Amino acid sequence: MTDSALSELIEQVTLVDHHVHGCWLDTVDRPTFENRLNEANTDPLADFDSAFDTQLGFAVRTHCAPLLGLPGHADPDAYWSRRAQYAGPDLARLFLSAAQVSHWLVDTGFADGVADLDAMTDLAVGEVAEIVRLESVAEEAAAAPGDYAAAFEEILARRAATAVATKSILAYRGGFAGDLSEPDATEVADAARRWRDAGSRRLTDRVLLRFGLYQALRLGIPLQFHVGFGDRDGDLRTANPLYLREFLQRSGDTPIMLLHCYPYEREAGYLAQAFNNVYLDGGLAINYLGARAGSFVGRLLEMAPFRKILYSSDGFGPPELHFLGARLWRRGMSATLQRFVDTGEWSQVDAIRVVDLIASGNAQRVYRLG
Amino acid sequence: MTDSALSELIEQVTLVDHHVHGCWLDTVDRPTFENRLNEANTDPLADFDSAFDTQLGFAVRTHCAPLLGLPGHADPDAYWSRRAQYAGPDLARLFLSAAQVSHWLVDTGFADGVADLDAMTDLAVGEVAEIVRLESVAEEAAAAPGDYAAAFEEILARRAATAVATKSILAYRGGFAGDLSEPDATEVADAARRWRDAGSRRLTDRVLLRFGLYQALRLGIPLQFHVGFGDRDGDLRTANPLYLREFLQRSGDTPIMLLHCYPYEREAGYLAQAFNNVYLDGGLAINYLGARAGSFVGRLLEMAPFRKILYSSDGFGPPELHFLGARLWRRGMSATLQRFVDTGEWSQVDAIRVVDLIASGNAQRVYRLG
Amino acid sequence: MTDSALSELIEQVTLVDHHVHGCWLDTVDRPTFENRLNEANTDPLADFDSAFDTQLGFAVRTHCAPLLGLPGHADPDAYWSRRAQYAGPDLARLFLSAAQVSHWLVDTGFADGVADLDAMTDLAVGEVAEIVRLESVAEEAAAAPGDYAAAFEEILARRAATAVATKSILAYRGGFAGDLSEPDATEVADAARRWRDAGSRRLTDRVLLRFGLYQALRLGIPLQFHVGFGDRDGDLRTANPLYLREFLQRSGDTPIMLLHCYPYEREAGYLAQAFNNVYLDGGLAINYLGARAGSFVGRLLEMAPFRKILYSSDGFGPPELHFLGARLWRRGMSATLQRFVDTGEWSQVDAIRVVDLIASGNAQRVYRLG
Repeated sequence: MTDSALSELIEQVTLVDHHVHGCWLDTVDRPTFENRLNEANTDPLADFDSAFDTQLGFAVRTHCAPLLGLPGHADPDAYWSRRAQYAGPDLARLFLSAAQVSHWLVDTGFADGVADLDAMTDLAVGEVAEIVRLESVAEEAAAAPGDYAAAFEEILARRAATAVATKSILAYRGGFAGDLSEPDATEVADAARRWRDAGSRRLTDRVLLRFGLYQALRLGIPLQFHVGFGDRDGDLRTANPLYLREFLQRSGDTPIMLLHCYPYEREAGYLAQAFNNVYLDGGLAINYLGARAGSFVGRLLEMAPFRKILYSSDGFGPPELHFLGARLWRRGMSATLQRFVDTGEWSQVDAIRVVDLIASGNAQRVYRLG
Repeated sequence: MTDSALSELIEQVTLVDHHVHGCWLDTVDRPTFENRLNEANTDPLADFDSAFDTQLGFAVRTHCAPLLGLPGHADPDAYWSRRAQYAGPDLARLFLSAAQVSHWLVDTGFADGVADLDAMTDLAVGEVAEIVRLESVAEEAAAAPGDYAAAFEEILARRAATAVATKSILAYRGGFAGDLSEPDATEVADAARRWRDAGSRRLTDRVLLRFGLYQALRLGIPLQFHVGFGDRDGDLRTANPLYLREFLQRSGDTPIMLLHCYPYEREAGYLAQAFNNVYLDGGLAINYLGARAGSFVGRLLEMAPFRKILYSSDGFGPPELHFLGARLWRRGMSATLQRFVDTGEWSQVDAIRVVDLIASGNAQRVYRLG
Repeated sequence: MTDSALSELIEQVTLVDHHVHGCWLDTVDRPTFENRLNEANTDPLADFDSAFDTQLGFAVRTHCAPLLGLPGHADPDAYWSRRAQYAGPDLARLFLSAAQVSHWLVDTGFADGVADLDAMTDLAVGEVAEIVRLESVAEEAAAAPGDYAAAFEEILARRAATAVATKSILAYRGGFAGDLSEPDATEVADAARRWRDAGSRRLTDRVLLRFGLYQALRLGIPLQFHVGFGDRDGDLRTANPLYLREFLQRSGDTPIMLLHCYPYEREAGYLAQAFNNVYLDGGLAINYLGARAGSFVGRLLEMAPFRKILYSSDGFGPPELHFLGARLWRRGMSATLQRFVDTGEWSQVDAIRVVDLIASGNAQRVYRLG
């Protein structure tokens, strides 16, 4: 096998994107597009700034421009005017098919302006399955008549019947620090009454958030947590997964998926070694790191057993993100593993086996994909 | 453009050093010199130790020795005896001019034994402008007659009129953890009375520290924070900039500059993405990392938008530090960006544009330098 | 000197392993072996998992297989069946002698199923000296008649008389966060009575843990702390050495050794710069990082003065670990320092001197080895 065999294989391997959102199908204006290339900010970008002057912006120009028939590193104006010539669904099909993904596991918890499950399926770019967001189930339960806990259980059971996983955004709703034990029925009933009385908007009540986590554990299907890097609605300090320790000790055999993790990927890797049921990926962070994604992908390969690492893009909105996550992961894996092989630390055969595990094997096993 | 064009450009680009202190003009003895090459320790170095056996010490011998006519890697004794042949101002001019800095923005808050603004100007090695330290203003206000708050406001307004920025060393005065809201007038008056009664030494009263921050915000000129690595008077644990989140949410449009940041540079980069008014640099840490500075410079280029990253040396005392910060930054940027270009992730044109932004463009914009 | 001279020297340099445990002398079954290759987990490995599919597992196959006459990267079954042909003491001698260690400083605090000091000495693979674990002394003192404090002092003095260091596993017994001041005699007596009344099992009483630390400081011999990565009995979040700050401020001149440190190696390096009596190593983490150990070894060479960095393997059980720690440290140092030399940042002479300091010089000085 030649030196380039490993990177060719990594370029071509089919992926399971085990955490992603819908992509845009409608046309957007340039400010909307640029704001969507900034994950952390919740305000419009400042006048002096441009999302094209970031690692992600550079990566879009480098890796996405060629798919639109432009040279790599096309300038932002050229990129934008070429992009504007495409209909939304055509852009989506173009980028999503180029990602070479067999299964898209879609978090439907926040879906404003993006393709829903049916629309994702209609793109015909891979199998589509749902991830149910626990905080959405809570909102449905609050709106339902009668006992909150019973409604939550019923709605979750119904929605989970056709889903592959649940997802918690506790990181955005107060963070991981503090008590994460299971509340008792009275506490839940009291908290639900207070929340309903207050209009049951954006759930931040810790009792109800904790209640949802334990209901999810009982399903046995994987439970995903947003961890680390995200928008500033969350406090990055308490999105450190080490705060989940006591919850993980109580989580039994249900697979717990730590998503994104930056800059806590080493902490997450440790937890994946420490608990048989804990997994991690680099999701969202890979896109935002652009030319620096390779070293991040390397850090994911430290303490976590290789059977506990997965791939995701966490793409949301611009279909560039659904493609770029795959593209940068491939490049990062290729650079990292080639170095392991070149220095004699790994054999090429082992490297290929690890690629297959992370690309799809682990996801197929844990989500029981056909 | 050849392969070396990028590094040649980086070698020659003129810098704005947006956070620095005065350099020594007087002759010092060797223990004083060596102790100054250790940032974190506040005790004299142990007998068994030498500041030359550190990354910074090696970098001094590698990069500063040639400016004194010695071979690179000159041994410590040779370095010291050659250095001792120079008058203080000659050493200062030699090293500061070699830094190729157009503007020195000088924090005058701690200036024992180092050049003041006039003396820095007299060296004729670039424009000099002042950064006003808030804790110094507080001490002046405590010593002034009458109402503390009014005195603080008056002194700050007067000093800021000719300054380009303010600076807080809250990291050394209790750290960032805890309430950082604006205190009301009664709280300030009470705290000021207590502090004055106790002799108004070293300000650690949190009410008065918070008061100063909000007064600084009102000026609209950039507010700098010491973040992360520094001497052990500060608790590195609570110098994590993520503890500043609520303050940043209240900081409006005033530019907030996170300085040094090691080992929280990833957290700082995230904040620079999350808030339109947040910026970062690698300041002090670059010198102390020596041969490891390059990988740190690379980490500064992760989540922060490229229009939000600046250069500083944080030099204080030995003029070697004012030069070495620039030298190591140039080498780190060169290695990092050349790799981005070599792997096809960035174009060379983009790399050059980012160099210009970080070297001077961003600082000129945010400090409104002529 | 040729390009490979540095790496040849690093391959051959004799080490002091300043923190290690006994190795197995008995034969073990494969599940026991695989579980021992996972540090963090305290449960048996899941059915779907294999400790061979980790960085450590790959490193065992790459670096240990050739010592058993197998090709590098031998597959797990081949490795296991060849290994099973050796008697335990033969395996131990094979791997420990290949580590090229002159002194093994052995933590005897947990020794279930592994060689004791005499058995380690009998292997004739280097000098053996003891490190006394403070929590073991506490258990002995609780079992002794009469006053707990007096018993502790007496036992510690007796055991320390022939030991080179003490060791605390506070990281596993509540972590570093919280008060670490010295308790007074009444507090100690009360806490001891409570602990004895409760059966004096696994010491987690903070008063008694703190008491032990200050007794150890009085001996003057080095006091080692488990820091960072370890099994999940400890909370990795509060194993951050920055929580030790106030204790370090009270620790006088007694050398404090921060062990392992991952992922807090930057924080530990800062403390080694900030306190004349603080040292660090990468211990346990190096083995578990396998092909990623090199970048970790590089991070150990940041803020810590070069006279404050040591080598250890923290091997426990499989003698592979006692060897592999040395092997991976050599490879990591070689790659890191060669890069420093190749880029002109360090001279080769300096690199060699730093190797000698970390390999044995610093340990010989601080432990006063003959």
